[in-house]
Amino acid sequence: MQLLEQTVSKIEPQSSEYRQMAEEHILNLTMPRWALGMVLDLAVDLAGITRSLSPAVKQKNIVLMAGDHGIIEEGVSEQPQAITVQMIYNFIGRGAGINVLAHNAGAHVTVVDMGVNNSLKDLVASGKVIDKKIAYGTKNFAKGPAMTREQAVASIEAGIEIAYRLSPHTDIFGTGEMGICNTSPSSAIIAVLTGTDDVAAVVDRGAGLPVEKLPQKAAAIRKGIELNRPDPGDGIDVLSKVGGFEIGGIAGLILGAAALKKPVMVDGFISTAGALIANSICPLSKEYMIAAHGSMEKGHRPMLDILGKKPLLDLNLRLGEGTGAALAMHIVDAAAAVMKNMATFSKAGVSNTGIK
Amino acid sequence: MQLLEQTVSKIEPQSSEYRQMAEEHILNLTMPRWALGMVLDLAVDLAGITRSLSPAVKQKNIVLMAGDHGIIEEGVSEQPQAITVQMIYNFIGRGAGINVLAHNAGAHVTVVDMGVNNSLKDLVASGKVIDKKIAYGTKNFAKGPAMTREQAVASIEAGIEIAYRLSPHTDIFGTGEMGICNTSPSSAIIAVLTGTDDVAAVVDRGAGLPVEKLPQKAAAIRKGIELNRPDPGDGIDVLSKVGGFEIGGIAGLILGAAALKKPVMVDGFISTAGALIANSICPLSKEYMIAAHGSMEKGHRPMLDILGKKPLLDLNLRLGEGTGAALAMHIVDAAAAVMKNMATFSKAGVSNTGIK
Repeated sequence: MQLLEQTVSKIEPQSSEYRQMAEEHILNLTMPRWALGMVLDLAVDLAGITRSLSPAVKQKNIVLMAGDHGIIEEGVSEQPQAITVQMIYNFIGRGAGINVLAHNAGAHVTVVDMGVNNSLKDLVASGKVIDKKIAYGTKNFAKGPAMTREQAVASIEAGIEIAYRLSPHTDIFGTGEMGICNTSPSSAIIAVLTGTDDVAAVVDRGAGLPVEKLPQKAAAIRKGIELNRPDPGDGIDVLSKVGGFEIGGIAGLILGAAALKKPVMVDGFISTAGALIANSICPLSKEYMIAAHGSMEKGHRPMLDILGKKPLLDLNLRLGEGTGAALAMHIVDAAAAVMKNMATFSKAGVSNTGIK
Repeated sequence: MQLLEQTVSKIEPQSSEYRQMAEEHILNLTMPRWALGMVLDLAVDLAGITRSLSPAVKQKNIVLMAGDHGIIEEGVSEQPQAITVQMIYNFIGRGAGINVLAHNAGAHVTVVDMGVNNSLKDLVASGKVIDKKIAYGTKNFAKGPAMTREQAVASIEAGIEIAYRLSPHTDIFGTGEMGICNTSPSSAIIAVLTGTDDVAAVVDRGAGLPVEKLPQKAAAIRKGIELNRPDPGDGIDVLSKVGGFEIGGIAGLILGAAALKKPVMVDGFISTAGALIANSICPLSKEYMIAAHGSMEKGHRPMLDILGKKPLLDLNLRLGEGTGAALAMHIVDAAAAVMKNMATFSKAGVSNTGIK
C-alpha cells in the first residue's frame, strides 16, 4: 500500500502555465485559428503533461498486461482459457495485431504476466515476459470476490513498478491487455461505477460471443455485482470484487505514468476499465490519460463519459491488446511535431489578416 | 479532351478477386472476426485497388493544387488573396501544417500552380512549383461562369498529367489544396449536386469568416448558381460554372490515380469537391478514393454521403492543404502491414475456437 500511496501523492495537475504557453504558441502558427482541431487540443495536453513545448514522445512503450478470469466458469466466453497463453506466445513471436501495429508506430511492446493461469516458465526465464503474477487467474466473481483487497493493491502496485522500471526508456506509455473473458470484469466495473440497474446495456460480445448468449453473460455479471456489493466510491474495492489482475496492472501503470508526468495512451474497453480504477483512486490521474479510440463494445462510451474523454480514433475496433493505442500514437507524434516544427506567421511572412 | 477520355476509359472497378482473397486471408489472422474494423475494410480496398495482397503504399505523394478565385469580390472571405502566394512560399519553406504532417507520414509534398493570381516565376523556374496554370484566378462566378468549359477540361487534364508524371515514384496519392476563397466554389458544387434550395446549409466559415457574414457568402453562392444554372448531371459543366482550377486539378489527379490503379487519399471539403467532379465524370473512380477525415465544414458530410464514404478520421480539422490526408496515411500503412505481417491461426498455433 505504501508504493500506491506514495505514487498517488506525487500526482499533480497538468501545468496550466505550459498549457497556456502552448496555446499562445499555436495561435501564432500559420493556419486559421485552431484549424487542426483535436490535434492541437492534444498538443496542449502534451505540453501540460510534460511541462515542455517540445514534448518528448519518441520512445513509445505499449505495456500488454495479461491475466485469466474465474468467471469463465459461467459460460461468458466461447473461447477456451488456453488462448490467453497461445496469444502470449504469438505476442512474443511478433505475429499478433499489436506487434504489427506497434512496429508501424515505432513502439516497443512489453508483455507482463499479471495473473495468467499458466506458469509461462520459459518466457519468464528468458526475460521475454515480465513476471508480476498475482495468482493463477482470478476467482469466479459470480460466486465471491475475484481477488482479495491485498491482491488488488498488489496488482496496482505491480503496474506502478512497471511504469517506473520502463520510464528511463519511455516517453509515452500505451496500455494493452490479453485475457480470455476480460470484457466481463470490465462490464462489471462500468456497471458498478454508473450504478446502472441495466447491466445488459454495458455487456457486449467480446471476442465474438453469439448474441443469444449475451443474457447469460449479463446475468453472471449482475449476479457477481449483487453478491459482492462493490463500493462504487472505492476503486480498490471494485477491482477486488469484480475486476481482474491485468485491469489492476493497467490502473497502476496509469498512476505510475501520471506520477512520472508522462502521457499514457489508453486503449479500448478493458484498458479503460483500468483507467476508471485509476481515476477512482486518484482523479487527477485522468489528466495524463489520452483516449485512443472508441471501441465497438457498447460499454466503452459510458466509460469515456466518466473520464470526460473524446477518443482520437473511431475505427470500429474491438481487438484490444493495445492495438488502438498503437494506431493513435501517430497522432501524438503529429501533435508534438506541429507544435515544434510549424512556422509562425511572422517567421513565414504570412499575413494573419482575417484569421479567426 | 482526348487525355480525359482515354483516362476515363482505363478506369476499371476494384478487383473483386483480390478483394475476396484479402477477406479470406484476413479471416485467418489471429484475432476475433474483423476485430480491426475499418482498418480491415481499408486493407480489402487496398487489395482490390492494387491487385495485391501486399499492396505497395510506401511512396506517398500529397499533391497540393493551388488556385485563386474571382468570387473574392463578393466579400466571401476576410483574408486577402495575397495569402495564397504567401502560403505557397510557406509550403516551399516547409513551415506549413502540411509540411510537418507529411514529414511525419513519410510523404512527399508536390505543389502545383493550377491558377494562382501571381506568376510565381521564381518558384516555377527553380522547379519548386509545377506550373499548370490555367489562368490568373477564376472569374467571379456570381457574375458569370468561373471558367470556360475548355479551361475546366484543361484543369482536369492537368491533374491527370500530374498523376502520370508522379506515378513512377508514387504508390499512393493524397490530395491537397490552397486557395483563398476556395470553400465558396466547394459549397457551390455540393449545393448543385444535391439540388438543395437551402444553400446556407452547406456554407460554413472557411478560414474563419465571422458568423454574421455567412448569409452574404451564401447569397453570393446562391446567386452564382441561379445565374449560371450548372447541369448537376455534367461534372465538367458544374466545374466550369462554379468551380475552381485547383478543384479541377484534384478531380484530374483522382481520375489519373484510378486509371493507374493506385489509391488516392482525399483530404477535406475542397478536395472532396474535386472528388465529386471526378465521380460525376466517372463514378468508378470513387472505388480508388479513400476518405481521410470528416471536416468541420458542414457541407462536407453531404459530399461524403454522395460518395458513400465513411472517413477514417474525425478530428475537427478545417485546415485543408492535404493535412487530413497526411494524418490518415498512417492508417493505410497499418492496413497494409496487418494484411502482410500478422500471423495466421495455424502458423501461430492459436486456436480459433469461439472466434466469430
